[in-house]
Amino acid sequence: MAQTALSALGEFGLIDRLTKAFTIENASTKLGIGDDCAIVSYADKSDIVITTDLLVEGIHFDLMYCPLKHLGYKAVMVNLSDIYAMNAKPKQITVSIAVSAKFSVEALDDLYSGIALACKNHSVDLIGGDTSSSITGMTISITAIGEVKKDKAVKRSGAKPNDLICISGDLGAAYMGLQILEREKHVFTQTGSQSPKLEGYDYVLEKQLKPEARKDIVERLAKYKVLPTAMIDVSDGLSSELLHICKCSNVGCKVYTDKIPVNEDTARVANEFSIDTLTAALSGGEDYELLFTVDIADFHKVSMIPDVRIIGNITQQSEGAQLITAQGEKIALIAQGWNGFTE
Amino acid sequence: MAQTALSALGEFGLIDRLTKAFTIENASTKLGIGDDCAIVSYADKSDIVITTDLLVEGIHFDLMYCPLKHLGYKAVMVNLSDIYAMNAKPKQITVSIAVSAKFSVEALDDLYSGIALACKNHSVDLIGGDTSSSITGMTISITAIGEVKKDKAVKRSGAKPNDLICISGDLGAAYMGLQILEREKHVFTQTGSQSPKLEGYDYVLEKQLKPEARKDIVERLAKYKVLPTAMIDVSDGLSSELLHICKCSNVGCKVYTDKIPVNEDTARVANEFSIDTLTAALSGGEDYELLFTVDIADFHKVSMIPDVRIIGNITQQSEGAQLITAQGEKIALIAQGWNGFTE
Repeated sequence: MAQTALSALGEFGLIDRLTKAFTIENASTKLGIGDDCAIVSYADKSDIVITTDLLVEGIHFDLMYCPLKHLGYKAVMVNLSDIYAMNAKPKQITVSIAVSAKFSVEALDDLYSGIALACKNHSVDLIGGDTSSSITGMTISITAIGEVKKDKAVKRSGAKPNDLICISGDLGAAYMGLQILEREKHVFTQTGSQSPKLEGYDYVLEKQLKPEARKDIVERLAKYKVLPTAMIDVSDGLSSELLHICKCSNVGCKVYTDKIPVNEDTARVANEFSIDTLTAALSGGEDYELLFTVDIADFHKVSMIPDVRIIGNITQQSEGAQLITAQGEKIALIAQGWNGFTE
Repeated sequence: MAQTALSALGEFGLIDRLTKAFTIENASTKLGIGDDCAIVSYADKSDIVITTDLLVEGIHFDLMYCPLKHLGYKAVMVNLSDIYAMNAKPKQITVSIAVSAKFSVEALDDLYSGIALACKNHSVDLIGGDTSSSITGMTISITAIGEVKKDKAVKRSGAKPNDLICISGDLGAAYMGLQILEREKHVFTQTGSQSPKLEGYDYVLEKQLKPEARKDIVERLAKYKVLPTAMIDVSDGLSSELLHICKCSNVGCKVYTDKIPVNEDTARVANEFSIDTLTAALSGGEDYELLFTVDIADFHKVSMIPDVRIIGNITQQSEGAQLITAQGEKIALIAQGWNGFTE
């Protein structure tokens, strides 16, 4: 397919082209793209939640194995996941990109088709952004805005002793998907082989390349009338997120290793790579599941919510953050999450 | 001074260090940094305006002559200027940065000291952000959120024939400041001379390195009870912004070249560089002045506002966008603004 240089359109022409397929779906969006600012207006009984994430080529994503449409979808999901983790509904996003001359207009069309699909699936309006050239590679910066009933936002700081610790979905799959992609990239760069072996790895690859923010879990919490006492999304790994809740809430926790949900495909791939399954689940990151705590009085209700599991309970801060193995052994929880500044 | 590697602190340690000096000043900020999202809550009679900008090293700024503290200040101003251009008051910002290993913790301290000063001067709260490493250089992404009385936001689209066209301050200075800095950089790279000649260029250098978003003009518009019919901030040059208002409002304009305000220092530097003063004022960009239109009935009131000048009037769209010279010659207005994608 013919590739068009970015310089052929100019900044305003490019913005027009990339955003023309987006429509405004939410009543709270009074003015979208095309002025100095967007204008939004929420119901009087609402609080507004705001989050922002920066994704840098070579640090957060590798275009060698991440198709641009998937990248656009995932970049939005990373932000929506933070909105859902506040018990809120995402309503608007802004998307800024810096791209070098190696990218064509058609490549950005692909990126924005993923962004558009993410917006459509989650009823979110694209209301602004910025478009720039860069010296090398691509940087994507997204800010998401969400709405929640006044004083119903769920922070990290509300967990209290005896609360139950719950997790949606399963963990470690995205990390194992990344291992597959890294392995096939290595094979390709070493041998020039054009046929990566991706068959049979659908589950872990999808979790890595096309994660889905858990809108459904927030909707189910409302349906089952469960208001979590604390909530966070799992982006850096379960250990790291548990420690955030413990620190922000001044509590400890006990998490039972045999309760931590791991998909059988994840376990199989971990075994193939001689990676401990529990390690993948605790430290893998990028799962975008929701980790939350509920009052013990909500035990029955939370037990009925599909795709949610109870994995432990909150304790006094003095007891620390502990993993309890199937053999009853206690292990102090430490964060092994991703650190972008490691040398 | 000792320089600390970013990797010594880790991401969370770095965020703690960079944000610890910031305090929350606005009642509308319910929760700041430290959770999945910030939480804001505005008065029931408010609309919310949102803008975002991306600044890329080597494209938008050159650290060879832009001190990091000034860069932090300017990066915030660029966004606040968009908020004021909606007739709104800025309340919150998020700041995301991607930096390569060439930057030390102390360098980022400088950047954030400029961001903090900008927040203090404009009563804005830092409520979130993201911090990442990058392969090369620095990228800064800022999103600003502002508040305006419901339905009092001023768009680009409300100008109508016979409205007066007004501009704050003066134009072309930031562009001439950039010429001075580029000249001294060239001298330095060619000769290794350590003493750039910056004396006597204070005005144009300050407009380039430390622009100030025109909070005062928005306050004066309120004080003099003038609600503009359209408004935009001058970031890409007067010509480009006039054409935006004409296009969005479906009108034409007549602007009188001898009415366009240019500081005498700007004119002197333009002369030194053999650059036409009018060209600098029309196409220079980065002035961050406010360009607005008012109903002709507001002529008396707007004439009394300090540091605001009337430079022309809105016409029927069929008349086009025209410059009128002192000799009465008509010249069609064309945008010569900055295009980030020019090859």
